[in-house]
Amino acid sequence: MSHAKNFYAGPSVLPVSVLEEIQKDMVDYKGSGLSLIETSHRSAEYGQVHKNAMNLVREIFGVPDNFKILFIGGGATLQFSMIPLNFLSGGKTCDFTLTGTWSKKAYADAKKVGNVNVVYDGKDNSYTRLPDPSTLKASPGSSYFHITSNETIGGIQWKDWPDTGDVPIICDMSSDIMSRPIPFEKFGMIYAGAQKNLGPSGFAVVIIRDDMLEKCNPNMTAFLDYKVHAEKESLYNTPPVFSIYAMSLVLEKVKAEGGLKEVEKRNKEKSKLIYDVMDKSNGFYKSPVDVSVRSDMNVVFTMANEELEKEFVAQAKAKQMVGLKGHVSVGGCRASIYNSLPLSDVVALVEFMQEFQKAKS
Amino acid sequence: MSHAKNFYAGPSVLPVSVLEEIQKDMVDYKGSGLSLIETSHRSAEYGQVHKNAMNLVREIFGVPDNFKILFIGGGATLQFSMIPLNFLSGGKTCDFTLTGTWSKKAYADAKKVGNVNVVYDGKDNSYTRLPDPSTLKASPGSSYFHITSNETIGGIQWKDWPDTGDVPIICDMSSDIMSRPIPFEKFGMIYAGAQKNLGPSGFAVVIIRDDMLEKCNPNMTAFLDYKVHAEKESLYNTPPVFSIYAMSLVLEKVKAEGGLKEVEKRNKEKSKLIYDVMDKSNGFYKSPVDVSVRSDMNVVFTMANEELEKEFVAQAKAKQMVGLKGHVSVGGCRASIYNSLPLSDVVALVEFMQEFQKAKS
Ligand SMILES: Cc1ncc(COP(=O)(O)O)c(C=O)c1O
Ligand SMILES: Cc1ncc(COP(=O)(O)O)c(C=O)c1O
Ligand SMILES: [Mg+2]
Ligand SMILES: [Mg+2]
Ligand SMILES: [Mg+2]
Ligand SMILES: [Mg+2]
Repeated sequence: MSHAKNFYAGPSVLPVSVLEEIQKDMVDYKGSGLSLIETSHRSAEYGQVHKNAMNLVREIFGVPDNFKILFIGGGATLQFSMIPLNFLSGGKTCDFTLTGTWSKKAYADAKKVGNVNVVYDGKDNSYTRLPDPSTLKASPGSSYFHITSNETIGGIQWKDWPDTGDVPIICDMSSDIMSRPIPFEKFGMIYAGAQKNLGPSGFAVVIIRDDMLEKCNPNMTAFLDYKVHAEKESLYNTPPVFSIYAMSLVLEKVKAEGGLKEVEKRNKEKSKLIYDVMDKSNGFYKSPVDVSVRSDMNVVFTMANEELEKEFVAQAKAKQMVGLKGHVSVGGCRASIYNSLPLSDVVALVEFMQEFQKAKS
Repeated sequence: MSHAKNFYAGPSVLPVSVLEEIQKDMVDYKGSGLSLIETSHRSAEYGQVHKNAMNLVREIFGVPDNFKILFIGGGATLQFSMIPLNFLSGGKTCDFTLTGTWSKKAYADAKKVGNVNVVYDGKDNSYTRLPDPSTLKASPGSSYFHITSNETIGGIQWKDWPDTGDVPIICDMSSDIMSRPIPFEKFGMIYAGAQKNLGPSGFAVVIIRDDMLEKCNPNMTAFLDYKVHAEKESLYNTPPVFSIYAMSLVLEKVKAEGGLKEVEKRNKEKSKLIYDVMDKSNGFYKSPVDVSVRSDMNVVFTMANEELEKEFVAQAKAKQMVGLKGHVSVGGCRASIYNSLPLSDVVALVEFMQEFQKAKS
């Protein structure tokens, strides 16, 4: 049967060509006689994959020399713990922007460790807008300023960044990393769970400036210490071999296809197709989100009632379009249209959206 | 080419039949139209895999009802952090047995968090022996008593357990979990990185008694809190989908083949073959390890000099036997002969050991 059209929010769509390459090499990795997943992480075979993955992140993202690239098992949620434990312990203060589910989860963990100053809270607008970055200020002496670049559930995405002076911005880019160029000069650290644009689930990519490493809590246990991962080039303990390998294949593809500028262009084209259909639907499809901060990754929309939304999701599924149900916490519909989702799948979705509207009007 | 004989210490040998099943379903998982690794962890497809993996652990290991089974990303090394943060914070004391590289790493992390009483240290015998368990006592008021059931690098393995009264034993079973039945009545918590007997790398299996969960530090950040993983059945955040799936296939196979008693029988048979050849080699192959605590998982041995060991490893590799080099920290040779290594591969190894000795004598 043909490959389904994958609108899941994460784990999410991977290129079919990458899946096929993984399949080909699964039992015997490149003639080594072993699968890569049963090969020591200290072997030449895995060493090459690991290094290649790091080099590709550096090259594709344009990571400056004064940043280290880390692969840390446990997902973005473990970063919600590691960030405050490293940078907030001992009575320190940080700044947070509360823009939806994910930033609030990161905030809840930070509050357990130290003082958190809320710079912005979108509660009054039900997290459907973002503040003008130029109006935001870090508090004096703050250890870091936290931003969630794309709220995966709410479907809102920062398009520009505040100027926080000497206070480093730490940004959760879990759901839009690699979707557009990253202006590293604005950040002290970025992090992302791998399972959206990068590859399968199993770890987080952390990109951290050298001076941040020096500021880590000196009494951390080994795994929770960014310095340990940096010094050992993410081989302090056994890494998630399969997930890093699969990511490296996705990165190879992005590189071959022209890098982040090209990716960004395609993503804007894809999201515009859906937003245009919504905007021309005379309110049949409604976006709760302020036009200026609509996400290019997670397009959320609602219809007149829940029955209609359910029917939409069911009919789409019958046409092999999966993952269109909104997150349980907010309801509605959501089309996650990450990097690896082909344009043709988005075209199929908007054609179906138009058909469905016609049938129901 | 034929599958290589895999003596790596971890990541390590997986059944070829499991690798072939993963391969078959990699692009289209059981007719779903998607790969499992690009499918939401909230989907019916993954939900089924996750639940099945947990049920199989409970069934095969005979986990009592008053223990929870957790899958936690980040490896066994993250457990070295989580254990003291949960059970040792706030001036508490625990007991440690120091039996080699891995227990010392766990100890180093615990010491950063609280008071650690060293009950046994094998330093004087270079970690080649273990104490008689009946001579060990927990200190009064101790929060837990830590044991490493099998020292992967040193090649020594506990054959019996101390009686620590009310003090719960926490046991790192990373390199011998599922190699023999587990007497759960002796433990408060066991944990293991997945990448030896269970499956590919990417997470740890934690099996924890309910009263231990109640004793967790109430101020933990979410990911580091065992209670959070227990309440959400290890779906609080995105799990390492691929690794849990692959483990479930290994578990299916163990179940079909007769469970832990059968596994233990085979493991003893396999390790005996190698130890017998060593013992009959007139000192050509030397084991540094006390006979009574020889590991059935990691068989370490040395020869007269490093040249000879190098040649042994090289010749073995030419015969498609890989992973026989000892850990860099101790040198020598090591044959890791985990559950999934076929008996025939061990037979091939001992035949080669005999040939090599003959050629060099
Ligand atoms: C923006 C954002 N941050 C954090 C997370 C949590 O990531 P993980 O599940 O890898 O812990 C997610 C998961 O979807 C996310 O979308
Ligand atoms: C006994 C033991 N404990 C802990 C570890 C560390 O496990 P991980 O690499 O998953 O962090 C290992 C790794 O080989 C081990 O053998
Ligand atoms: Mg998707
Ligand atoms: Mg959200
Ligand atoms: Mg092995
Ligand atoms: Mg050891």
